[in-house]
Amino acid sequence: MSVIYNRVALIGLGLIAGSMAHAMRRAGLATEITGYARSPETRQVAVEIGLVDRVCATAAEAVTDADLIVLAVPVGAMGQVAEEIADHLKPGAVVTDVGSVKRAVIEAVAPHMPEGVHFIPAHPLAGTEHSGPRSGFAELFDNRWCLLVPVEGSDEAEVARLAGFWQALGSNVDVMDADHHDLVLAVTSHAPHLIAYTMVGVADDLRRVTDSEVIKYSAAGFRDFTRIAASDPTMWRDVFLTNKQATLEILGRFTEELFALQRAIRLGDGDHLHAYFTRTRAIRRGIIEAGQDTDAPDFGRAVARRKAAETG
Amino acid sequence: MSVIYNRVALIGLGLIAGSMAHAMRRAGLATEITGYARSPETRQVAVEIGLVDRVCATAAEAVTDADLIVLAVPVGAMGQVAEEIADHLKPGAVVTDVGSVKRAVIEAVAPHMPEGVHFIPAHPLAGTEHSGPRSGFAELFDNRWCLLVPVEGSDEAEVARLAGFWQALGSNVDVMDADHHDLVLAVTSHAPHLIAYTMVGVADDLRRVTDSEVIKYSAAGFRDFTRIAASDPTMWRDVFLTNKQATLEILGRFTEELFALQRAIRLGDGDHLHAYFTRTRAIRRGIIEAGQDTDAPDFGRAVARRKAAETG
Repeated sequence: MSVIYNRVALIGLGLIAGSMAHAMRRAGLATEITGYARSPETRQVAVEIGLVDRVCATAAEAVTDADLIVLAVPVGAMGQVAEEIADHLKPGAVVTDVGSVKRAVIEAVAPHMPEGVHFIPAHPLAGTEHSGPRSGFAELFDNRWCLLVPVEGSDEAEVARLAGFWQALGSNVDVMDADHHDLVLAVTSHAPHLIAYTMVGVADDLRRVTDSEVIKYSAAGFRDFTRIAASDPTMWRDVFLTNKQATLEILGRFTEELFALQRAIRLGDGDHLHAYFTRTRAIRRGIIEAGQDTDAPDFGRAVARRKAAETG
Repeated sequence: MSVIYNRVALIGLGLIAGSMAHAMRRAGLATEITGYARSPETRQVAVEIGLVDRVCATAAEAVTDADLIVLAVPVGAMGQVAEEIADHLKPGAVVTDVGSVKRAVIEAVAPHMPEGVHFIPAHPLAGTEHSGPRSGFAELFDNRWCLLVPVEGSDEAEVARLAGFWQALGSNVDVMDADHHDLVLAVTSHAPHLIAYTMVGVADDLRRVTDSEVIKYSAAGFRDFTRIAASDPTMWRDVFLTNKQATLEILGRFTEELFALQRAIRLGDGDHLHAYFTRTRAIRRGIIEAGQDTDAPDFGRAVARRKAAETG
């Protein structure tokens, strides 16, 4: 591997930026990584664990002389950060982001970008339910997809360079337009997250089923929902507020389908239910064949327990 | 460990019965394990892999002289199996089941039980998305909960003996009444499964987002739903048809809550969303503290990848 961007500035030092720092070092992709986070506590932790080469007190300082600037803050904060750094960007620098919504980020960031700076939005489809500067790890992007969403007039050579950077971080790269991105993600991510948050909230509300029972007996399926519903609240608030239309559209389809299945339950239509549940099995097989999840039972939890039993 | 029931008959040879066979052998709990499955193919596989000591051609033959009989078939098949074995049960034998719904199983099975036979319904809260005679493993029940649901007149000493058996298989044991069981499971299992099936079905339906995109980009959250939605269709059809009332009640609450969150999105009420998402995080922490799931990011998928990277 070799250096792709000499100096890289990470604005925001959470799970994604932290994992990028680890993965850049693993592959030797930059000569200096600077970082900035709004919270003094986050900056302090980043210094302690040596997350980046230099932690800066302002975003402006972090981006000065940087060749690649990565906006890794919640989608709702992108516009303000873009405004803060605009006057400090080097001509020819590349500004990218890692936001989960693309149309809203483009509208918030693009107006602030000075002439001669390349703005190329991006979205790595990777994450865990953990957040903060200690949560990152170098393998987060390995074999995951990163979607590049070039804007009107994006320089092709710079898009290719950014694609090479993400590949060097371990990702596969696809290029997509913003509206299609926002619809696809509404299906594969935003609607599932809202549904998981809802189900966990309902369980929490039910007073006839005590908290302790919901927790003790969670292994029957519910615990998978709680993982998703433990994701960062600020990030997800912003996702829903900025990908409103596509998310509401998919949730509308979801509710329609849920009502049809509820009706089949009420009417005792077992054939309808069986056919539906058989069809959904095929999608799981597709995901495993595409290398996007493990075929180990229970996400490998069972294997982990077996290994623990063998060695213990 | 020592023998708790001399002869154990497993009726149905899928994930749960298979795992019980492995766990019984691990702990030396029986002197002979017999097995029966309706499908000749399943019986053939069970013989090939030596899943039990003796595979029988009929349920009646399998239960003859058995001290413990475990009904491990889909809930909708319990009544018929109970009828088939009734005349072949030894006086003093214990009949139990592993069905995910308890009121319906009691209504289907209890009328067939002869005088002098102890019927003690049970439900081990454990499973994976895999099914069939090859899917079982000895550790499935370790540190999971098994709920015993004694019926009117259940012998206390026999309930305690069955509890000891499940503990020897690795489980924790709680006792609960049937209606409360069915409500708790509607929350922690049945509603989450129907919701996951629905979301995966919606994704499959959307023609603007091709199958390939849904699969490629599933790591953004969707893939967790597909695991649940890959569970056995026959088993789940029967669960919904037999726990109709509680499941529909929880789904009603879910829909109400989902509409409230959709409304918050539409109105741009970020505070409502943020407060909701913060509250659901606490439940995840409770589950991890209760030892019912791993705190490893992404269910340990990330750790598995890191270890693969270290050794590869």
